[in-house]
Amino acid sequence: MSDVEKGHYGRVALIGLGLIGGSLAYAIKRAGLADHIVGYARSKETRDRALELGFIDSACESAADAARGADLVVLCTPVGTYGDLAAAIEPVLKKGVTVSDVGSVKNAVVRDVGPFIPDGVHFIPGHPIAGTEQSGPDAGFAELFDGRWCILTPVPGTNQEALEKFSAFWRACGSQVDTMEPKHHDLVLAIVSHLPHLIAYNIVGTADDLETVTKSEVIKYSASGFRDFTRLASSDPTMWRDICLNNKDAVLEMLGRFTEDLAALQRSIRWGDGDALYNLFDRTRNVRRLIIEAGQDSAAPNFGRNPAAKK
Amino acid sequence: MSDVEKGHYGRVALIGLGLIGGSLAYAIKRAGLADHIVGYARSKETRDRALELGFIDSACESAADAARGADLVVLCTPVGTYGDLAAAIEPVLKKGVTVSDVGSVKNAVVRDVGPFIPDGVHFIPGHPIAGTEQSGPDAGFAELFDGRWCILTPVPGTNQEALEKFSAFWRACGSQVDTMEPKHHDLVLAIVSHLPHLIAYNIVGTADDLETVTKSEVIKYSASGFRDFTRLASSDPTMWRDICLNNKDAVLEMLGRFTEDLAALQRSIRWGDGDALYNLFDRTRNVRRLIIEAGQDSAAPNFGRNPAAKK
Repeated sequence: MSDVEKGHYGRVALIGLGLIGGSLAYAIKRAGLADHIVGYARSKETRDRALELGFIDSACESAADAARGADLVVLCTPVGTYGDLAAAIEPVLKKGVTVSDVGSVKNAVVRDVGPFIPDGVHFIPGHPIAGTEQSGPDAGFAELFDGRWCILTPVPGTNQEALEKFSAFWRACGSQVDTMEPKHHDLVLAIVSHLPHLIAYNIVGTADDLETVTKSEVIKYSASGFRDFTRLASSDPTMWRDICLNNKDAVLEMLGRFTEDLAALQRSIRWGDGDALYNLFDRTRNVRRLIIEAGQDSAAPNFGRNPAAKK
Repeated sequence: MSDVEKGHYGRVALIGLGLIGGSLAYAIKRAGLADHIVGYARSKETRDRALELGFIDSACESAADAARGADLVVLCTPVGTYGDLAAAIEPVLKKGVTVSDVGSVKNAVVRDVGPFIPDGVHFIPGHPIAGTEQSGPDAGFAELFDGRWCILTPVPGTNQEALEKFSAFWRACGSQVDTMEPKHHDLVLAIVSHLPHLIAYNIVGTADDLETVTKSEVIKYSASGFRDFTRLASSDPTMWRDICLNNKDAVLEMLGRFTEDLAALQRSIRWGDGDALYNLFDRTRNVRRLIIEAGQDSAAPNFGRNPAAKK
């Protein structure tokens, strides 16, 4: 098998060594996709920890030093940092290198990184649809991408061989690969990811502000539903700030639809319209069944938190 | 130990044999809290299945037949059915019997069941804060209540010995027991349970209605956040219709606060107020930490759906 078919790159530079950078490094090592992984993180503490955990082979004190001579550079930091990072690495990118990222928005990445991509460099923005609520170098693990989707949003004129190789790379990391227009990616993610996180942050904030129900009551009785939202609402705040700032139009569009539907639901409750309530609560069941059938969630009750429950 | 201390009842009648009725029966048997469990469910299929699974000792074709001669009667059906059931069992309740329920609202239960409680019968409404998204007789398991809270909302003048015995019963089923005013219970549950479920049903409905993003895209990329909501949104629709209809004021109050906060969040996104976004996303993290410390959720990333992830 050729390096293109294998998705093998000689030297891989990971810019950012948190949950996704770390997991990607572990997945690369598991599949033998690089000869050397060099890492950069802003804080010395993170770089040292990544070396100690052994998921990178060497660390650099600047993004440019890490990117110099690399065959694949992947930005794994919050998307608000991409413009500056792209400007910093532009001078050192070698001919034929592939530059990608893992950001949760793609239109803003094309806008911020695109202008710094020299001729002869392959720019293939990407987004692995995987994560946990944890962050930092200790949160990563090789299996994070297994069975999940990775969406690539190649720009017009992208070299086909570079795209094939990078797709093979993600497949070897455990992902299934799709390609999509950046604008459509941002619309899809606004509903499947950005809106859910915003709603979760919002309800946890609302509960935290109540004066009629104590915080201790919210905590004690959280197993009745609330606790599920606190997982998404404990995701990395910088990452989510940057997503909101960089996918404004699509997020506002989905928020508008959500609040419109919520107003209708609120009206059904106020006027005691049991049929309307039943119809909404009944038709949503089917969606979960399809997600489980597609292998994108566990069929175990309570996400498997009750090991004794039958499936 | 006396029967009061043990929480032991001779004959227990369970009216309703779904997730909660079934789990309660298994928990009763695990702890040896009854000499005989008699069950009633509207459908013959459910009664036969409960007998086959063995979590009840005998089945009756009417609620009154099940309640006749029982020492403890627990209503385990959707709360909208309680008034009719209470009227049906009133004539057969024996002196000294305890009548309770497992409904997610309590003020409406006092209103609907209270008038049918004869003198000398102990009426102790209850709500075990436990469940899964599944329903029906096959969904139950003995461990459902372990470590969770059960809230009792005794009416004024409740017999203290009856209350102590029933509290001991729930503790023997694995729960921790709290007592509360019915009105306050309904306010607390509106924020920790009813609002989360409504929000989940609503977002799944919104996603299902989109014409710019296909259903197949929503399913495929659901691991980015959306799938979490589909669990709550696949709960029993009849049960949730009845909760909305019977806790209207508290639910509308919490919905009002939620939408007000969401409007502020929407405005922060529109105007690019990164600091406001960061502040909200940062302060909500702490709530999850407290829930995990209180033993009300798993500390494992992704609710433990990634067994390879470190804690």
